[in-house]
Amino acid sequence: MKVAEIIAIGTELLTPQRIDTNSLAVTESLNVLGVELIRKQVLGDDRERLTEAIRAALERAHILILIGGLGPTEDDITREAAAAALGRRLQLSLEQESVLINRFRKLNRPMAKNNLRQAYLIEGAEALPNANGTAPGQFISTNRGAMVLLPGPPRELKAMLTNEALPRLRSVVPPQCIRVRSFRITGIGESDLDTLIAPVYTKYANPVTTVLSSPGDLFVHLRATAETEEKADALLREVGNPIATLLGDKAYTENINEPLEGVIGRLLRKHHGTVAVAESCTGGMVSARLTEQGGSSDFFIAGYVTYSEAQKSKVLGIPPELIGKHGVVSEPVAAAMAEGAKRHSGATHAISVTGYAGPTGGTDFDPVGTVYIGITGPAGTRVVRTRFGSGDRLRTRLLATQSALDLLRKTLLASENGAGSAL
Amino acid sequence: MKVAEIIAIGTELLTPQRIDTNSLAVTESLNVLGVELIRKQVLGDDRERLTEAIRAALERAHILILIGGLGPTEDDITREAAAAALGRRLQLSLEQESVLINRFRKLNRPMAKNNLRQAYLIEGAEALPNANGTAPGQFISTNRGAMVLLPGPPRELKAMLTNEALPRLRSVVPPQCIRVRSFRITGIGESDLDTLIAPVYTKYANPVTTVLSSPGDLFVHLRATAETEEKADALLREVGNPIATLLGDKAYTENINEPLEGVIGRLLRKHHGTVAVAESCTGGMVSARLTEQGGSSDFFIAGYVTYSEAQKSKVLGIPPELIGKHGVVSEPVAAAMAEGAKRHSGATHAISVTGYAGPTGGTDFDPVGTVYIGITGPAGTRVVRTRFGSGDRLRTRLLATQSALDLLRKTLLASENGAGSAL
Repeated sequence: MKVAEIIAIGTELLTPQRIDTNSLAVTESLNVLGVELIRKQVLGDDRERLTEAIRAALERAHILILIGGLGPTEDDITREAAAAALGRRLQLSLEQESVLINRFRKLNRPMAKNNLRQAYLIEGAEALPNANGTAPGQFISTNRGAMVLLPGPPRELKAMLTNEALPRLRSVVPPQCIRVRSFRITGIGESDLDTLIAPVYTKYANPVTTVLSSPGDLFVHLRATAETEEKADALLREVGNPIATLLGDKAYTENINEPLEGVIGRLLRKHHGTVAVAESCTGGMVSARLTEQGGSSDFFIAGYVTYSEAQKSKVLGIPPELIGKHGVVSEPVAAAMAEGAKRHSGATHAISVTGYAGPTGGTDFDPVGTVYIGITGPAGTRVVRTRFGSGDRLRTRLLATQSALDLLRKTLLASENGAGSAL
Repeated sequence: MKVAEIIAIGTELLTPQRIDTNSLAVTESLNVLGVELIRKQVLGDDRERLTEAIRAALERAHILILIGGLGPTEDDITREAAAAALGRRLQLSLEQESVLINRFRKLNRPMAKNNLRQAYLIEGAEALPNANGTAPGQFISTNRGAMVLLPGPPRELKAMLTNEALPRLRSVVPPQCIRVRSFRITGIGESDLDTLIAPVYTKYANPVTTVLSSPGDLFVHLRATAETEEKADALLREVGNPIATLLGDKAYTENINEPLEGVIGRLLRKHHGTVAVAESCTGGMVSARLTEQGGSSDFFIAGYVTYSEAQKSKVLGIPPELIGKHGVVSEPVAAAMAEGAKRHSGATHAISVTGYAGPTGGTDFDPVGTVYIGITGPAGTRVVRTRFGSGDRLRTRLLATQSALDLLRKTLLASENGAGSAL
């Protein structure tokens, strides 16, 4: 198997405030090629140290990716260090010079003299066009494989990586097929998820299975490698289908780029449904999520962040006696909030959230972290009580938001499947 | 100046889904000691490669920090690799063995045999107690300074770093004082900020000045090094005071941990003010920000996410004719939204946001990215029109949210300074 290393260059990446994230996109591309990443490094703008690091990496790796340090200023030293490590010279490329001059002419901006630094290529290098900036990348064939210089700004890097670097790197690695299948899951903890599906995936080394988590959101990735697309797909079916069965409706999508609110939008659009939200402790987060994607006005009618008791009565029409009797954080008030939001907005569905996000508040019966989530729709009203353990306000709000969205999704699915009346 | 390197260990840190963030906390500690970080690396669980990397790093750095790979399983190889790189042996520590046995006894859990791996120390190493887990850290004096082994779980690492590693590292670096001053800034772009303050800070190598940015939010850090606290503070005043003057009310706080909504909460509480929000394109994000901190019910009354035209009329009492004449994204509607929210909630202040977040929509006069922000309070109503260039929905929503909060902050400040009537 071919192995690769990445070096990200920039003194700012060695501060406590900054982190190299470009290497994640590069790693993904290397994995697509079937190349194993064995090391990544961050170095500052020090020419001598960088030259030594590049030289050592070239002895270990077939593919070496250098990120950043291609700007026009004196502390952009990647070109010089890479040339020195290879023992080659930097040469002014007349073609790159005119690319630069034309670019500045088009932007109607004067070109500072130091911009010319960006027109220098390492002997034998191929220039990689930069669709989003002035610094060209460079592709250099080496004894063991290839070295690639990519610009640091993520927008420039990503386009150049996909369109210029990847196709050229394919020529230095043996061809193979990699296919991926993913599940996005919510409503279950990471260890419970693993207990559920490990009996299936641990039997297979190929596909490789990874489980990743963020608060309230889990991802299962299967990555199959084979000589042909068909064989890789067959492996994905062999392992993925039993996993899909075990997950059931806990998996909300197999499209890695579709968030929970995307699934909800799709279901609502399909059935011409609409939604309104009444929030207390999540303070607008549920509405914000539902409106995150373009075109959400197709199905999102209104959100009511009724923080004070008076507002709950005034906006949502909840009788003050109901609040007085049960308290604002209670099943009857959650139900009344959802019903009030539906009535007031005219939406087909409404969800509500009321709870103790913390760090203070709560009662003996409903301690900090307790959240009531209400849903109402054509099939009636339902309230779910959940307790999020941590007492961490941000985490409780995130988990409550995710739970509210998931309750809406499951309700929409159930009515689609005839468990409730049609939308 | 002493220099340091960090190596984070773990194959999972070489996937496209994971990133090493532990090194940021370590970098901060190194900076406090006045030690310069010259390189950080991530390596997988490969004993041979790791041994070679540690050996090379020990030749370059005075201080080498190894993170992770201290668990009980076979793929936790940091102890072995570090010992091999130093040419020393691993020895079972009877003291660490009994610490482990006691820990498991207390938890009432059986101790698996491989847990004993965690009781092995490198010859000459001092064990660093782990308050939050089973793996002890290790501190080893070397020819050039010191090598430290820290556990990977962030909670374990942070406690051990602060309480155990830092005090011991102080003995290998010359004593010095480091003091920090920070500004958080909004309402100005990064390059404009730099143009504004560079004439001051570029005259000084000490304090070191860094400018960092996230969408709509900028940070300026000054870090002064001197023999005494007094001298470091004097340097911070010498450079920081002129910068504070230049920034004026663009700097919303000097407390690095206080977000914009924290400043607003402080101002509102001080003057017994309250706030309501009417949002369209930001879909609840302004309300969510204002309720992010505990106790926000002291000043936050209500949020109205009026996404549909009908809701704008029904909830906020905006005459349909006004919307018909000017459109929902317009100055008069923004003003009416703010005034409606204030009236309906009884708050002392209200802010409103209406705009084209994209990716589609907009008019010739108000293209995608145009946002109207309204504010009303005791001093009257005002609307600001802004255009956020990109057409990126998420970015436009983030920037509009930040701008709305900043307009509220400036209005509260102005009335505090007597420019408007008192709250």
